[in-house]
Parts: sequence; C-alpha cells; structure tokens
Amino acid sequence: MDMKFRIPYEWYYEELGRKTDALFHAMRESIVNGTLAQGTRLPSSRRLAELYGVSRGSVNAAYDMLIAEGFARAAGGSGTFVAYSDPLSGMVHGAAVRAPLALSEWGERLVSAKALFRVGEAHPLLQVPGVSEEMCFRLREPDVSLFPVEAWRRTLFAEVRDMMAVFPAITAPVEGYLPLREAIAQDLRRERGMRANAANICITNGSMHAIALLMKLLVNPGRPVVVENPSYAGIRRAIYAEGGSILAAALDHQGIVPEEWRSELLFVTPTRQFPTGAVLSASRRTELLAWASRQGAVIIEDDYDSELQWGGRLVEPLKALDSEERVVYIGTFSKTMFMDLRLGYVVLPEALLEPFRLAKALQEPHPSALVEQRAMAHFIGSGDYARHLRRMKRVIGRRLLVFRDEVERRLSRWFRFVPADAGLHMYAVWRGDAVSYAKLRERCAALGVTWTVGDAYWEGDIPHSTALFGFAQLQEAQIKEGALRIESVCEALQTY
Amino acid sequence: MDMKFRIPYEWYYEELGRKTDALFHAMRESIVNGTLAQGTRLPSSRRLAELYGVSRGSVNAAYDMLIAEGFARAAGGSGTFVAYSDPLSGMVHGAAVRAPLALSEWGERLVSAKALFRVGEAHPLLQVPGVSEEMCFRLREPDVSLFPVEAWRRTLFAEVRDMMAVFPAITAPVEGYLPLREAIAQDLRRERGMRANAANICITNGSMHAIALLMKLLVNPGRPVVVENPSYAGIRRAIYAEGGSILAAALDHQGIVPEEWRSELLFVTPTRQFPTGAVLSASRRTELLAWASRQGAVIIEDDYDSELQWGGRLVEPLKALDSEERVVYIGTFSKTMFMDLRLGYVVLPEALLEPFRLAKALQEPHPSALVEQRAMAHFIGSGDYARHLRRMKRVIGRRLLVFRDEVERRLSRWFRFVPADAGLHMYAVWRGDAVSYAKLRERCAALGVTWTVGDAYWEGDIPHSTALFGFAQLQEAQIKEGALRIESVCEALQTY
Repeated sequence: MDMKFRIPYEWYYEELGRKTDALFHAMRESIVNGTLAQGTRLPSSRRLAELYGVSRGSVNAAYDMLIAEGFARAAGGSGTFVAYSDPLSGMVHGAAVRAPLALSEWGERLVSAKALFRVGEAHPLLQVPGVSEEMCFRLREPDVSLFPVEAWRRTLFAEVRDMMAVFPAITAPVEGYLPLREAIAQDLRRERGMRANAANICITNGSMHAIALLMKLLVNPGRPVVVENPSYAGIRRAIYAEGGSILAAALDHQGIVPEEWRSELLFVTPTRQFPTGAVLSASRRTELLAWASRQGAVIIEDDYDSELQWGGRLVEPLKALDSEERVVYIGTFSKTMFMDLRLGYVVLPEALLEPFRLAKALQEPHPSALVEQRAMAHFIGSGDYARHLRRMKRVIGRRLLVFRDEVERRLSRWFRFVPADAGLHMYAVWRGDAVSYAKLRERCAALGVTWTVGDAYWEGDIPHSTALFGFAQLQEAQIKEGALRIESVCEALQTY
Repeated sequence: MDMKFRIPYEWYYEELGRKTDALFHAMRESIVNGTLAQGTRLPSSRRLAELYGVSRGSVNAAYDMLIAEGFARAAGGSGTFVAYSDPLSGMVHGAAVRAPLALSEWGERLVSAKALFRVGEAHPLLQVPGVSEEMCFRLREPDVSLFPVEAWRRTLFAEVRDMMAVFPAITAPVEGYLPLREAIAQDLRRERGMRANAANICITNGSMHAIALLMKLLVNPGRPVVVENPSYAGIRRAIYAEGGSILAAALDHQGIVPEEWRSELLFVTPTRQFPTGAVLSASRRTELLAWASRQGAVIIEDDYDSELQWGGRLVEPLKALDSEERVVYIGTFSKTMFMDLRLGYVVLPEALLEPFRLAKALQEPHPSALVEQRAMAHFIGSGDYARHLRRMKRVIGRRLLVFRDEVERRLSRWFRFVPADAGLHMYAVWRGDAVSYAKLRERCAALGVTWTVGDAYWEGDIPHSTALFGFAQLQEAQIKEGALRIESVCEALQTY
C-alpha cells in the first residue's frame, strides 16, 4: 500500500511552509478528489513520517485535523481511515452525457480570474499550535494563543441563551444587528474621529463581502478602477469579475502617489498600505479627496487593520475628512478576532445606503450569522474586546520591536524594510536580483525559515523581489533565531 | 405631545394586518427616519391605545419589540423612551455638499427593481404569539410555538463548546461545513431519490443567496429567463438586476405548461408551484428535461418546501431525473426551522461547481455563520430535526385538513381553491371581479380576518384576483372561525 501512497505533499509544503499543514492539505485533496477512497486505511504515523521525512508528531497532528474536519476517522487501535466518499461516485457516474453549460459574461470573467483566488491569502488553519518548530514568517493571523477563547465562549453561551429566550423575535434588519452597528459607530467616532452613525453602517460577512458588493454597484464593464500597486488580490478579483480594468497607481514611502487619474473609483488602504505598510501622508489624503471631488469619483477606503496599531500615532481615516460624502469606509473584525469570524462592516455615504442595502438584500433578505453578530456586540459591550486588543497590543507590539531590532542589525544590508508601527507583518524589498532571491529562499527553507513572497500582489510586471515577514504569530526567541538564520544565509550567499 | 405623535400606523396595518406588528413597524420607521428623536418619551400604552383604537396589550407588545430590537428603552416607572439616535445627526449634517454618486448599470437596474423587494414576503416578526386575536391567514412561518426552542438551544450550546475546544481549527471550505453537506446529501438520497453527494453540495446563506449567485453566473443582459407566472418575487429581482428579461410561462392545475421557449434558463418550482401550489405532473417533468436538452438550457429547481409535505405522495424532483446534468437543485432550512436561520443549499452539476464556488468565494473567501452550520449538522444527526418535522407534520397536517374542510363547505362557491397536500398556505382564485374582491377584503378586515393577496406575484397583467391563505400558524378553532366569517361576508355581499 505504501508504494501507492502518493499525496501532493511537496506542492503544499512549498505553498504553505509548514509540514503539518502541508500533510493535511495534501491528504485532504487526495481524499476529496477520490484518490484516497472512502474506507482506505491511511499509513501509520511512523510509516508516513518516514515516507515524507517529517516527524511523527507532524503526522499525528495532520491526522487529528483530518478527523476534526470529518475527512477521516480513527478506529481505535486499528488505524486511521478515510471517512469521505468519492465525490465521483454519486451524480456524476450516473450521468449519461455531461452537458457543457454556458456561463454569463460575468461568470466567464470570474472563472478566468481564478488565478487571483487564494494567492497571498493566509489560510486560517495554517496557524496550528505546536508540532513544527520552523521559523515561519509567513503572513498569518495574529498568534491564536492570544485569543481569549474562554471569554468568547462565555459570550456565545450568553447570547444563545438570550436569543432563545426571545425566540422568534431574534431578527435584524438587512443592514445588521443594531447594537453591533451602534458599538461600531461609537468606536469609529471615539477612536477614528469619524462622524459615523449606526444608520450609515451595514454589517457584512467579512470585508470581501463589502468589497464585492461595492464593485458590483460601482463598476461598469470596461471602466478603469484605480488600485494601489501592489495590492490585495481580493479587490482585483472583484474588479475583473465586473469587467472593470485596473489602473495601477504607483506607491512610494508615503503611500499612493496622487495623479489626475481618469477614473470614477479609487480603492485605497491609507492607514497602512497593503502589503507595503506605507502610511499615507496627510497632504496626500487631502489631495485624494480633492481629486475625487474634481472627478466626481468615489473612494473606497479599506481600513483592514486600523485596530492593530502597536505604536506611533494612528492617522485619521479619509472618511473623517470626507465632507462631500464620497468615501466608503470598510472595516473588519476578522483580523482582530479570528479569521473564521466573518464579520466586517461598511460606513456608507447617504447616496449608497439604499443601493448597498438592496444589493445585500438581493442575496440575503434577512441577515445571516445572527449569533455571531449579537455575540460580537456583547463582546464589545462587556469590555472583553478592548481587553483583548490591549493584550494583543502589548504582546505583538513587543514582538514588532524585537523584529525591527533584529532586522536593523542583521538584515538591512540585504533587505530594504518599510518602517512599521502596526499590523502583523513588515514588508521588505530584496536588494539583490531574482536569482539570488530564489537561492536565499531555498537555503532559508532548508533551515526551516520561510516567509511570504510578494509577487502575487503585483498587477503586471513585478519590479523587484519582495517579502512579507509576519512576526505576530512567533515567540520572541523564534523571531531572533529566524533573523539570525536568514542573516547567516545572506552572508554565505554574498561570499560566493 | 400626543397631538404631534403621528406614526404611519394605518399604512402598516393595511400592509401587515396585525395591530401589534403595525404599531411596531410604524414606530420603528419614525424612529429610524428621525421623526421620533433619541430620548423622546413615547406615549403611555393607554394613550397610544386610544389614539389608534387598539388594545393596551397590543401597544405593550409593540413596545416590548422596540425594546428588544434596541429602538427604545423602558425607564422603570417613568415610561418608554426612544433609544436610537437620528440617523441624520451624524455624517450627513456635517456634509457641506452631498455628491450624487454614479452607480453601475447593475446598480441602476437593482435600484429600479426596488418595488420587487419586500412584496409578498412574510416578515419573521409578524409571527408574534398572543396579543391580537384576529384571524390572520396571511402567508407566514409555520406556528413558531411548534419549534423546539429548547432542543435548538441545547444544540447551539454543545456546538459552541465543541468549536471552542478545537479553536482555531473551526474553519470550513467555502462550500460549507462538510458534515452538514453530508447530512443533506444523505437526506436527498433517501427522501428525494437523488444521487446527491456532499461534493456537489454548497451551503448558502439562505436560498436567495443561491438564486442570486446563479443568476449572476448564468444570465447575460438582454437574455430571456423562463419563469412561472405567478412566481416568487425574489427570482424576478435577481433576473432584473442582471439585466435579463422575463419570459413568463403559463401555469395550469398541473403546474408550468411546457413550450418550446427560446431560452437557456428556466426557473421552476415543480414540487409545489409557488404560489399556486400546483404539483408538476410526471410527464411534464420529462418534457421540461427534454426541452432543456434540445435548447442546451439549465433548469433551476427551487424545492423550497419539499419537507413540508403533510399528506399524499412526494413527487420526485427534476434533479433525480437529470441524466444530462442540467438541473441545479435549491433547498432551504429557513422554512422548516425558522426564518432567521439563513441556511440554504444548492446541488450543482459538475460544470457549475467551480464557478459557483468562485462566485461565493469572491464575497466570502471563508464561509460565514459557522456556528449555525455546525449546529444544523448536529441537529440533523441527533434526530432532533426529524422529530421536529414529524411534529410539524402531525399538527400542521391536521390544520390543513380542517382548513380544506372549511373551504369546501363554506368558501368554494366564491373561491376556486387549488388542491393542496403540503406547504403552509392554500392558493385560491376569487370567482368575482376586482371590485367585489376589494369589498370582501375590506369587510373581512373589519371582522379581523385577513390573508395575503396574490397580486405581487404576477409579472405583467394580473388576470384575476387571488388569495394565499396561510393556515399553518393558526389554531384549528381560529381556522374555523375565520372561514365562517369570510363566508358570512361573501353571503352578505351576494345579497346586495
């Protein structure tokens, strides 16, 4: 059996950088595509560890994940078995003819933008505690061990009890649970200087939900949308699906460089440019608003990590300066809470309030995830959320200081880092060429050190080799050891 | 103060037919649009009851709903106060200029289809127990007192505990939580004779989520989509938003009448046509599939209430006969559980699997409402769901028998009823003209008897006056008394 046990481990390892995750995903894929059929006995952890040169601990952790996800089951002492039936055994085998179905133009565009899906996005399962001891600087969720699981469970319990006590009066308007919208508005007024009001806030199932609906509402086929370059792949997917074209805007250390773009829509991350981390200067903020006014344009401000500010001063959002009601502000809880809590929100200009509500209602006449929406409102109201943010600030702020220190001492000869006071990663440009960068990555990976490569964030040509170093999930000792190893590889490379 | 207390009560009463609900919505609207400002003291229940000729019980229930929703607060003995701030006090007052923003063509179409939103849809809050004693036959959720609140709470508790125990490994693929998809597949195989498989099933946030994404994937601007006439307004909204045109298909007592439509897409409700309740005959099922094969078309089968079968035989879905993989099957839990549980699903042909997954992932790279998805899987697995369905079948089945009996004895001279074994309502055509129908409704309403008028379900001309009598929320005695009162009005009308 073992000779036939072939899973795409290497591919996932290259992609994910952690052995346990790579094993899990490789087996999962093989199970889902039917290579590993229902009932198949998986190799013993010893055998699989040998086959792929990993530790038995990694294998066992991957098996536990498969079991937790329902793809496998443990049968006492007799081993682990595939518990998922071949997806081809059902409808498909019964089909005499399989007709090709014609997609709409939208559907065709979506499918052809497929390459933009999943690139550069952290997978929530990547962050599995223990097992692998590599120094993984890939972009991730903040250290999950910081999340107050007990307080969140308590909140969910209380919320379920409350909801069921008033059943069936547990509904909320399409724009979301009012107390949550009020809590958000209060926070935006207090912390971000915005004249936000619950009536202008709409809860979404994560920030991509807001982005995708806004692109539908604002982009016509063939029309250009200004997007920072590099940028988050999600916005580009949404623009392509609507048939819009991307007008790639240049960046420097002060963020996006204003121009007299011929466009009616700009997507921007002023608080902390993604992925470079550059903070948009005050004068440029004013320039962007003036541009929007001249062009009659809308600005979408994605403030994806304004809460993750570890030092320095948080700048005012564009929305706080928006006297003409041209700015749409997007925020999210998925980064400060955890990735699988899909709660985002959007602060809308009056003119977009009804269109956005209709766009959301078209798919969800009543809002989904009410348990989570209500629990989040209580989590804020009880102070648990603020406590959690303070703790993150303390711990991750310290990690950032450690990482910046290491970077300055050890890596600044080889990488040009963008200064950072916030967020979960630092962005850096490799001072060498693409060939030396590939060598660097290969040798570092061999020493157990990986990070996220920035290529997927670029539109068009990739002008230089870039790196995103996530530091928020690592212990200080790991950060130091990781930087040390990268330095050693850089020095060795230079001597060649 | 009282003289100034003007709320759109009459409008909502005409729309909703229940005093408490009308009061709630009228006050809610006045609060949200700022007519009743934050801090305003609401009239005493005695005073408001006098003002609008309702009972104090109705007023108190409406106040309780406002408080539960966060629009008002009770301040001990000193009264009830508005607890929602004027939405215009925030961003809008600060705006020097308010710019008109240009919507996309999609956005413009959506906004101009606005009239199709909210018509003919039951509002979950309509079903508030007690208070009003009218005989309200409007289309509603099934009697909420039948829902096993305690079992659902237990399931949610257990699920929260389990999820937090494996935190952060609580994720699910974009197509939804696998055990839920497997439970659905098993049920579809066993109960509906479908070769369904978890791999072809995608969980959605309610069935409209599935419908809206499918319309995006399949409809090009200007292309015709075949839709039964009358039909659910939701499908028409989605088609209009995509710029498609509606090819209204005729119905008779056997459901949709097949024709050689020049179209590549058909939306149909074969199990029980909405709203008429006609069951599509077996020969027509075959004809529809043959048509789809000749035209290279896709059929979307919305099986919105297949679980709500109280007698007779449940017919096979189109999807069970779909040898060419041309049928998309949509199901939902929102009708059998409760309206605010937004869980639907779609069984997809192979060719649509990836496009649908991408369309969903564009908005939700990770699925939302994981608590509810996981709880639903356990609710099915524990047998609680089947127990609930059996109880509904017993109780509501009996109510249907009572209603059919009353209808035959008392109302068949005035209404032509479509026979029904299932669902939550019976559909009827008024044998008189529009003028006599208006009189009937007015007089019945004066006697506390209301129902849903079918006008909103028609595309184009409305050929006759129609009624949807929801019986699932009423006690048998209420059903009898209601039918008696309608009969008395009909008889009185005829003697004029």
